[in-house]
Amino acid sequence: MQNPPNDGTKQSASRMNGAFPSTPHAPSPESVSAPPSPDTYLREAIEMAVQNVTTGQGGPFAALVVEDDEIIGRGTNVVTTLNDPTAHAEVTAIRRACDAQNDFELTGCTLYATCEPCPMCLGAAYWARLDRVYYAATREDAAAAGFDDDHIYEELTKPPEDRRIPMTQQLGEEAQRPFEAWRDYEERVEY
Amino acid sequence: MQNPPNDGTKQSASRMNGAFPSTPHAPSPESVSAPPSPDTYLREAIEMAVQNVTTGQGGPFAALVVEDDEIIGRGTNVVTTLNDPTAHAEVTAIRRACDAQNDFELTGCTLYATCEPCPMCLGAAYWARLDRVYYAATREDAAAAGFDDDHIYEELTKPPEDRRIPMTQQLGEEAQRPFEAWRDYEERVEY
Repeated sequence: MQNPPNDGTKQSASRMNGAFPSTPHAPSPESVSAPPSPDTYLREAIEMAVQNVTTGQGGPFAALVVEDDEIIGRGTNVVTTLNDPTAHAEVTAIRRACDAQNDFELTGCTLYATCEPCPMCLGAAYWARLDRVYYAATREDAAAAGFDDDHIYEELTKPPEDRRIPMTQQLGEEAQRPFEAWRDYEERVEY
Repeated sequence: MQNPPNDGTKQSASRMNGAFPSTPHAPSPESVSAPPSPDTYLREAIEMAVQNVTTGQGGPFAALVVEDDEIIGRGTNVVTTLNDPTAHAEVTAIRRACDAQNDFELTGCTLYATCEPCPMCLGAAYWARLDRVYYAATREDAAAAGFDDDHIYEELTKPPEDRRIPMTQQLGEEAQRPFEAWRDYEERVEY
């Protein structure tokens, strides 16, 4: 997994955002550049999503992870090109951001997604401890385009035994062993 | 991503399951071996989860993807060792199974997990089009061990604006562009 250089990233966001015109008493143009707004990042992600489709990389989705006005992870949907059903844009962006930070948490970071995250991606956002999520299209827009995240949201609210994918629980007693091992393992890294 | 050789995998499942004693009129012992039961796979996963903890690889979770009595993907929780918050056991097993199959769908396959999948992993199971899920420990067991998947299930049922991670929707009109590009792209690979 590789990220584009941060310099290019910042430049791009700043270019899309524009800068205030300088005045005689203003500080240098660089220091008065408005920080990129959520719209700026969403527009950049939308452009990435369009490109992702037209270059045959995958579905019409893209996402960015931003920390302190810097894009630290970018992702597009590459499910079909990587043969990975988990390679949604948000998951890809989160994995790349974590890779870049050498950390499994993204506290202080914001996720920008071209579409409302599906339950898998929203779950990933919680596990990554992201601070905030901005998104553009809704799950209804996604459904209209043939991406039916909404039914997965509905499935998750059902009891496991009533779901479309049948779920069966068994061996509950034996299943405590890994948790006991975890409690006994003094060098465990909590996450 | 590498899978252990399938031979070892099958051997292990068969060894744990045992075989019916042969009788004079029965076919050869090999052909009368009972197919591994769900308990067999769950026990193998539980053992993997214990090992995952005691070898310092990560959290107390493991999962298997099985097709036609053959394990095609194994995964343990490697969040902290890979710096990847999405590297839960189920996601890892699904990604490896897809990698082994060169396919982004696992129709006909069953997921065996040592614990009830969290929303991220359950979402991954739906996107992978798995047929069925068996799990051992419950989300309440996980919560008692310090893994609070349950609160993420609760979050997902809330309207986006009421969640613990604030979610904001904007630029809905511009966000249709990737979907339009998708509809216009004749070589798209549906997923």
